Amino acid sequence: MTVTPDIAEIGFIGLGIMGQNMALHLQRAGYRLHVYNRTKSRAGSLIAGGAYWHDSPGAVAANADVVITMVGYPADVEEIYLGDDAIVANAREEAYLIDMTTSEPSLAVRIAEAAKARGLHALDAPVSGGEMGARDARLSIMVGGAQEDFDAVEPLFDIIGENIRLQGGPGAGQHTKMCNQIVVAGTMLAIAEGLTYAENFGLDPTEVLDSIGTGAAQSFLLTALGPKMISGDFTPGFFVHHFIKDMGIALKEVEKIGIQLPALRTAEGLYKKIAAEGAREEGTQALIKAYRRT
Amino acid sequence: MTVTPDIAEIGFIGLGIMGQNMALHLQRAGYRLHVYNRTKSRAGSLIAGGAYWHDSPGAVAANADVVITMVGYPADVEEIYLGDDAIVANAREEAYLIDMTTSEPSLAVRIAEAAKARGLHALDAPVSGGEMGARDARLSIMVGGAQEDFDAVEPLFDIIGENIRLQGGPGAGQHTKMCNQIVVAGTMLAIAEGLTYAENFGLDPTEVLDSIGTGAAQSFLLTALGPKMISGDFTPGFFVHHFIKDMGIALKEVEKIGIQLPALRTAEGLYKKIAAEGAREEGTQALIKAYRRT
Repeated sequence: MTVTPDIAEIGFIGLGIMGQNMALHLQRAGYRLHVYNRTKSRAGSLIAGGAYWHDSPGAVAANADVVITMVGYPADVEEIYLGDDAIVANAREEAYLIDMTTSEPSLAVRIAEAAKARGLHALDAPVSGGEMGARDARLSIMVGGAQEDFDAVEPLFDIIGENIRLQGGPGAGQHTKMCNQIVVAGTMLAIAEGLTYAENFGLDPTEVLDSIGTGAAQSFLLTALGPKMISGDFTPGFFVHHFIKDMGIALKEVEKIGIQLPALRTAEGLYKKIAAEGAREEGTQALIKAYRRT
Repeated sequence: MTVTPDIAEIGFIGLGIMGQNMALHLQRAGYRLHVYNRTKSRAGSLIAGGAYWHDSPGAVAANADVVITMVGYPADVEEIYLGDDAIVANAREEAYLIDMTTSEPSLAVRIAEAAKARGLHALDAPVSGGEMGARDARLSIMVGGAQEDFDAVEPLFDIIGENIRLQGGPGAGQHTKMCNQIVVAGTMLAIAEGLTYAENFGLDPTEVLDSIGTGAAQSFLLTALGPKMISGDFTPGFFVHHFIKDMGIALKEVEKIGIQLPALRTAEGLYKKIAAEGAREEGTQALIKAYRRT
């Protein structure tokens, strides 16, 4: 791992569970961090480790060679990049702007264009791997942008992830993440329906998982979330409301070009149903609730 | 692995790709085989190895301590077990009858009752793992029946599989296999939809698989069949028409008790569509065709 010598100061905006873990790895690797988060208390351990707090995204950008963002919704991304006192308007000359939020491909394109107009380098780089992947620096990072920009910041990606790929121009990282979320959505339906069958026909669902988990039905999600569906442990690993956001982005994209993805559509409908019934802040394994008769 | 001493002669009916491989393992383990298949030529290598050919399922049953069946459709299972000159009517006293076909749970119950009435021991024991699992003796075997009957023939299961579980009484093996097929159906939708998105948004689907195949979207099927979907290699591992049969059984069961499994329903519809358009004898990865605009 080589570190680009002229990157010393990194701005990090968005210190949720994912962002905090990612920022911590960069701090431990020796970079000086400039941080901002809507809730300042979440920056505590980073500040204790030497990070500088700033009161706005623009102020972070003014102090950093690279700005990394990991926020919640596309509207947040738009505000911190393109709003008043925002990143693009305040960034240092030639700075790299990396949005790692799962967000809209078309917004990534707009940010890339606005950045380019100011001589900045923008990349969209959403991740997969969840809290555990962030903590263990084993994230998959799906990148959209220019090859030379990717090359320049790849050493930073190497610090927080391990499967790092440039997928195309601006927006391609987000599109790739949409593929990931579409596969996840269908797989969640698959698991919930298989377990629903088991429960309804008097089988022991745990024994069923033990039988089917090693063959053609095997998946990361079956192993990770199947047992939680069975036991009713809906503690969030990945929030229902964030997943609904992601599926909404994907559906908006496919509607634009007129293709049908019925499993994705079904998954979004069922997740909205359980969200309306109180599962917004639960983990995605709460999908099983949509199948259980009350 | 201990071999029950009073099982010496095994009848094996149904010598397709799966059945031939399973029978071969039993022959190599030292059992004398009695075989029948609709197409006699498929018995060639087993006969060369010392197996006895018989002209009917009933004749096989009359010569065996254990009869194993691995045929195509529930109608075949019903005919060879319950028809004239069939297994139940001709089996030796106290014989074990093991149907390893993926078939209807309710038929498994009927066979078990008919067997019991004659003092025979029936088990339903469908498998997962496909041709490779059968060849390598690494099948998952999902068993329904009485504990003592399972215990008596488990040494035989150990010869052909490695994840072998009694899931409950008669029919429970078939119900467990339905869970497996439901999870497979949803996962196939997931993969086909994710790749459809990739293809439609100008991504390199192979690069996308490399990005998403190690994280939350990971599954056996994504790795095994995703590349075949991309390259258009529809060579059958598991036939479309067999999968349609399995999904039909599962849907018939869930209709009986009034639960909704929308992903399973969607998968069945799309598979029937591609089957009608010529993909009956192709592998299940041909699902991608249902999403490609022609």
